[in-house]
Amino acid sequence: MTSWIRFRFADGHTRFGTLSAESVTEYAGEMFGESTSTGNVHGVDELTLLSPCVPTKVVALWNNFYALSEKLGKAPPTHPLFLIKPPTSVIGQREPIRRPPAYGGKIAYEGELAIVIGKRCSNVSVEAATDYIFGYTCINDVTAAELLNEDVNFAQWCRSKGFDTFSCIGPAIRRDFDWRAARVVTTLDGVERQNYPLADMIFSPAEQVSLISQDMTLEPGDVIACGTSIGVGSIKDGATVDISIDGIGVLSNTLALES
Amino acid sequence: MTSWIRFRFADGHTRFGTLSAESVTEYAGEMFGESTSTGNVHGVDELTLLSPCVPTKVVALWNNFYALSEKLGKAPPTHPLFLIKPPTSVIGQREPIRRPPAYGGKIAYEGELAIVIGKRCSNVSVEAATDYIFGYTCINDVTAAELLNEDVNFAQWCRSKGFDTFSCIGPAIRRDFDWRAARVVTTLDGVERQNYPLADMIFSPAEQVSLISQDMTLEPGDVIACGTSIGVGSIKDGATVDISIDGIGVLSNTLALES
Repeated sequence: MTSWIRFRFADGHTRFGTLSAESVTEYAGEMFGESTSTGNVHGVDELTLLSPCVPTKVVALWNNFYALSEKLGKAPPTHPLFLIKPPTSVIGQREPIRRPPAYGGKIAYEGELAIVIGKRCSNVSVEAATDYIFGYTCINDVTAAELLNEDVNFAQWCRSKGFDTFSCIGPAIRRDFDWRAARVVTTLDGVERQNYPLADMIFSPAEQVSLISQDMTLEPGDVIACGTSIGVGSIKDGATVDISIDGIGVLSNTLALES
Repeated sequence: MTSWIRFRFADGHTRFGTLSAESVTEYAGEMFGESTSTGNVHGVDELTLLSPCVPTKVVALWNNFYALSEKLGKAPPTHPLFLIKPPTSVIGQREPIRRPPAYGGKIAYEGELAIVIGKRCSNVSVEAATDYIFGYTCINDVTAAELLNEDVNFAQWCRSKGFDTFSCIGPAIRRDFDWRAARVVTTLDGVERQNYPLADMIFSPAEQVSLISQDMTLEPGDVIACGTSIGVGSIKDGATVDISIDGIGVLSNTLALES
């Protein structure tokens, strides 16, 4: 039942530790390496949650749920279809999503399960893949929807999803998580918009890690966003998106009102 | 006339410095920050060149030359069209390009100019953009060509170009480089395959930095691959690709024979 978080104190220092109910136990060392409890326990309200990991890349899947595949009328893929989101797109719990200054169009939410890699891996088998998964968290794979097909010759996946603050990750990384029994629930200002079972995934987490590790070396802290299912919609400025996965927690981010 | 390199000694230590003719002057500090000469001078043959920078992302442009745009019959874009290549794809001078174990298809070279960012930038104007460019180097934007359109619903730009060793960068970063007068020459086992003028670029380096900095924050060491022009072709296992830009140098990488 261990959940790992990264956080910042009021003095600006960044730390990591485990979260249980409303208390945080601080650890020293490395989250993905050797770590030991410092014995310091804090209240959650004494600190600011950060993205629980600092990925060198976010590998974001498209068309990885049968329900969405059927709705789109697109055949299920034979290999994970993905784009890469840069580290600069990552924010954590309650950090504001920011509208790009030059973009006035629709901004879409996509509630998703995120896999967090724990150990460097390359060309691992499906059987071995689980050993390289540190745990799971929530991701809101935000998209500047009107840019995606702005150019008829080139789908702009990396641009439309790569803006700063467009990968909301958190609140915590749950280690012993059974994705087969869980659902992703997305609410927009409290109204449910997505509610889909993770059992509907086309490529399981272990298959994703195995297949993507054949495409590139995955590093500790790297994130694979497992793709979304039906119910994607747009976020009005000032609206709040909550992504909830039982056993992981609720990731909450607001699209900032333009200043 | 200053060119910066990163290199490794036989003892495994990584350093950086300036390159002139056949000698290297070692520096201490940070290449993109404060640095001072250590006074140590080495012969180039005493050390192993590394990629001259360690990007957090490689932003790689498609369709950024008028000649290629015309050949493809695609209109010139109104904003840079790009994909993102991960840090794990980066190698340096003379490091082998490696065929992905699960891929037996064509592997293509693309000789390109690379912009190296020197200072963090976001939403900078075209006029200001030059201040954020540290310098220029060569890049071979390698592609597993048969994967790109393997799925009819999703062009796999990040996958086909994101494999480990598929971003060859180097040999050195030239600071005071006049791209307007230079050409990119690519040879395959010594036979010229590409020879195109950088003046044919659709978006100039300053325009690229300005426009892409509106899409994401660019970090010191990040690389923008300016796109290639006509003459792209495939590399046979064991063949060597040299990318030469006058004033920068010759980047040479061989596609390793399968072991």
